[in-house]
Amino acid sequence: MSRKILIIGGVAAGPKTAARARRLDPDAQITVLEKGKYISYAGCGMPFYLSGQIHDFDHLYSTAYGVKRDPEFFKNERGVDVLTGMEAISIDRAAKKVTARNVDTGEETVFEYDKLVLGTGSNPITPPIENLDLKGVYRLNHLTDASAIKQAMDAGEVNDVVVIGSGFIGMEAVDAVFNPRRSVTVVEFRDTLLPGILDTDMGQLLYKNFYEQGLEGRFGERVLKLEGEDGKVTKVITDKGAIDADAVILAVGVRPNVGLARDAGITIGETGAIVVNEYMQTSDSDIYALGDCVENTHLLTGKKVLAPMATYANRQGRVVGDNVTGGSSTFKGVLGTGVLHCMGVNVARTGLGEKQALDLGYDIESALVSTFDMTHYHPASNKVLLKLIVEKGSKKILGAQGIGKGELAKRIDVVATMLYYGGTLDDLLNLDLGYAPPFSTPIDPLVHTGNTVKNKLEGVAKTYTAKEVQEKLERGEDFLLLDVRTPQQFVMRNIEDNRVQQLTLGDLRYKLDQVPKDKEIVTVCVMGSRAYEAARILEGAGFKDVKFMEGGMEGWPFDME
Amino acid sequence: MSRKILIIGGVAAGPKTAARARRLDPDAQITVLEKGKYISYAGCGMPFYLSGQIHDFDHLYSTAYGVKRDPEFFKNERGVDVLTGMEAISIDRAAKKVTARNVDTGEETVFEYDKLVLGTGSNPITPPIENLDLKGVYRLNHLTDASAIKQAMDAGEVNDVVVIGSGFIGMEAVDAVFNPRRSVTVVEFRDTLLPGILDTDMGQLLYKNFYEQGLEGRFGERVLKLEGEDGKVTKVITDKGAIDADAVILAVGVRPNVGLARDAGITIGETGAIVVNEYMQTSDSDIYALGDCVENTHLLTGKKVLAPMATYANRQGRVVGDNVTGGSSTFKGVLGTGVLHCMGVNVARTGLGEKQALDLGYDIESALVSTFDMTHYHPASNKVLLKLIVEKGSKKILGAQGIGKGELAKRIDVVATMLYYGGTLDDLLNLDLGYAPPFSTPIDPLVHTGNTVKNKLEGVAKTYTAKEVQEKLERGEDFLLLDVRTPQQFVMRNIEDNRVQQLTLGDLRYKLDQVPKDKEIVTVCVMGSRAYEAARILEGAGFKDVKFMEGGMEGWPFDME
Repeated sequence: MSRKILIIGGVAAGPKTAARARRLDPDAQITVLEKGKYISYAGCGMPFYLSGQIHDFDHLYSTAYGVKRDPEFFKNERGVDVLTGMEAISIDRAAKKVTARNVDTGEETVFEYDKLVLGTGSNPITPPIENLDLKGVYRLNHLTDASAIKQAMDAGEVNDVVVIGSGFIGMEAVDAVFNPRRSVTVVEFRDTLLPGILDTDMGQLLYKNFYEQGLEGRFGERVLKLEGEDGKVTKVITDKGAIDADAVILAVGVRPNVGLARDAGITIGETGAIVVNEYMQTSDSDIYALGDCVENTHLLTGKKVLAPMATYANRQGRVVGDNVTGGSSTFKGVLGTGVLHCMGVNVARTGLGEKQALDLGYDIESALVSTFDMTHYHPASNKVLLKLIVEKGSKKILGAQGIGKGELAKRIDVVATMLYYGGTLDDLLNLDLGYAPPFSTPIDPLVHTGNTVKNKLEGVAKTYTAKEVQEKLERGEDFLLLDVRTPQQFVMRNIEDNRVQQLTLGDLRYKLDQVPKDKEIVTVCVMGSRAYEAARILEGAGFKDVKFMEGGMEGWPFDME
Repeated sequence: MSRKILIIGGVAAGPKTAARARRLDPDAQITVLEKGKYISYAGCGMPFYLSGQIHDFDHLYSTAYGVKRDPEFFKNERGVDVLTGMEAISIDRAAKKVTARNVDTGEETVFEYDKLVLGTGSNPITPPIENLDLKGVYRLNHLTDASAIKQAMDAGEVNDVVVIGSGFIGMEAVDAVFNPRRSVTVVEFRDTLLPGILDTDMGQLLYKNFYEQGLEGRFGERVLKLEGEDGKVTKVITDKGAIDADAVILAVGVRPNVGLARDAGITIGETGAIVVNEYMQTSDSDIYALGDCVENTHLLTGKKVLAPMATYANRQGRVVGDNVTGGSSTFKGVLGTGVLHCMGVNVARTGLGEKQALDLGYDIESALVSTFDMTHYHPASNKVLLKLIVEKGSKKILGAQGIGKGELAKRIDVVATMLYYGGTLDDLLNLDLGYAPPFSTPIDPLVHTGNTVKNKLEGVAKTYTAKEVQEKLERGEDFLLLDVRTPQQFVMRNIEDNRVQQLTLGDLRYKLDQVPKDKEIVTVCVMGSRAYEAARILEGAGFKDVKFMEGGMEGWPFDME
């Protein structure tokens, strides 16, 4: 008798499971229940539809060869029954039955299963803000949300946008709606953009770039309520003030949708998501779960984490498809890899951030390096800022982050691959990464960053971060900030303070007598490498207390006075 | 007393060694001898100067901050003495002295050393071709070569170009000179573009793309002589015919420059390059060597190989800089990673090719996959062809290759990182690579390729390569080539043969009676995934002898009849 596979949820994880199961078991009866209207759609593509980069709404739920992924497609090409507008409301585990309700008619149907798959996803968190039901308030969860915002944008009704929350979804929303004719403000309760994703220093540098393009950021600020006129939003009221708004996008995160599983007595973890083993099996061995509704194991820390990302949903779909048809594939865990393109800037990260690592008790060294993503003479080259975090002692790499116009996803994927193997700094310096002028530098930016960490660990490079330098200045410390850039570079942007002295690197060896011997010296340049060179020259000449500022002026996130 | 470090060679490896040594030892006397005129230049940048992407010749030997890397720069910023036009002619190892000759005056000078570094590089191979001294015959070895070709191009004297050799340098030369108003022919003695770098199937697919853009390739053809008029080249004569030419670029490879080392009794390996240990020490422990003149260890096979690449020269420079100042850094070896951008197409590879793996006795499985480099709905998405080679049994990854307009360097860097760790197919499927629509697909193209290999290993996917299908057709075998694309796609490009039947995937389940039960069936589509689906449907319906064509029509390199 053919196996009955019942899948709840038709967005990403469910359809992937169905497709894989069908390929492995041509005889199985495979049924997908989805309460919404659309199935197998590209939720991640919604921002690109909003921004106009994707013109045709249908592209978000079409195959690469232009066929709509609708129930008919699933029936014809996959032999899978997909029922939309059908909400699963209870599971009878003993009888192996699921009851579902037609969302239009209210009619209930009972489905039998041999293997049940829960891909119930997540719901956007609704923060405790008054008047969220005003017109002009949007989420970015379903395709219908995207089409509502797009309609309002096309009608010219979206001019003063407030995005609440600055995680990946919030910043994708910013990217989608930002243009110079709109006022866009992002309100973030924490102290930086992309909190928990980027370290504060990196988040501030990113914000500096966005601010210069015209984005307004409000940090450490909590939204209390919305105000409106004629049922339409007009203002966002925070604990620090008011912001005009004719459109508000809520992006404060998602919460796993586990009601159905919990009601059926399936184990829910401390994270609030469904507990699964590495075969993606729940506490009921005939019930699998995957995607946004499950908790994942962090491969570095072993801790359970929420990781509501499309890539995990898809990769887990393949694993579950294998296992519901008799296989034994595994999904080992996650490393928190993430990439983003926003307002012309690439953002990428993997592993642990500096604060996360410190909170977990790691003794760490890190470096922030400003460099080019490919040979600087190549016309397509762009700057990038890379940060690498390494455990002292073991020299195990713990994480990396990058921001900049240049290529970063590649470098972060390399680190993610190393993290999978528990890779060390010495490994990094021995990788054979591809080099040609349009792709990299002879020593890859990532390896260059690794070299800097190594120099710091070995005491060859002694540095301050930009923040430490700023704090020294603010505390009124007596030290010399020796700027070794060219006079032209100095004039363009410099730290105005009487503790700053300008002396070009090429002159330094011949003008050592102009540098005071009795003070701490901090060298600074554009990107850090000349300042490092200068510090080594000074140390070689007998100066005892010399450091350089990491990342150079490229790593200086603060306003110039 | 300060340490004397003498470095022979001022192009890449030497200056890098000098810079690192200086940073670690401020007191050392560091001297670099270079027989040429330019030092520390970007040899890899020459093609971009020729193509006009780099306008200013000076950029090829300037720092990122616009300062020329000339002897004055090395003196002022690095405290390193660089002597150009100074050719080292002998080493007295007992006395630790090097004699050098001024190339202009013939005057000889003796230099003492505590540590000697040989970065003598490589010389282009001069093939046995008559009349190579004709005007219009170029190499791409020194900056002076680049400026000679550029001058001729600017003077309109470069119209019919023949490039001899199609390795990385040859194809970079093709990229630099190719434009629709020039006739460009590449002559390659072996049977494919980039032989030894790409497998034949990948090389043929790449050539198909270039051919359609207007490049002429002559394969399995040997150049015998050049003919000229008034001392200027006019024709290239091969063993198969003549090609008009007013410019010939020789790019048949390089040979390590080891005369100085050999004369001094330093051990030369079977590859013809200087033998070094992982500290980059030669058979004389006070003499180090690095860059193009040394042999490297292949990390997968343990064999000694030549690897004349700028990235190794630079990375080894750091290692030697450490070691000549008392450190003990190591360079472990190479994996043959390489990347190229040519005529709008990216090429990348690492590890072993299919033929190399078979020659070494590996039992392998591989897959050729055609897919998109990012979500297909993103406007910047492009197609890529990826090939992954895996050892059966151990499932160890042995190598990967990619060609296409889309992003590939990232995927190859990930494989290179895995190869360093001896990674397996299961590891690949568990990597946490970054995903967002502008960067990747929810299941990365590389992981997708890994899934295909896994399906083949497990017997879920049974395939023929394009070449195997072509051979079956040519042998006159009786089988059915079932094309499951849409009628529109079929009309645009199809294999004309009466064994081809067209039946769209969506219709297949309902028209199984139109498919003959008594024949072998090979399904085909655009990129392979629908053909795979079709094969699974047919197998599920009881068809016994079904395969699909890997890579789809995207993987079909042959002319249509």
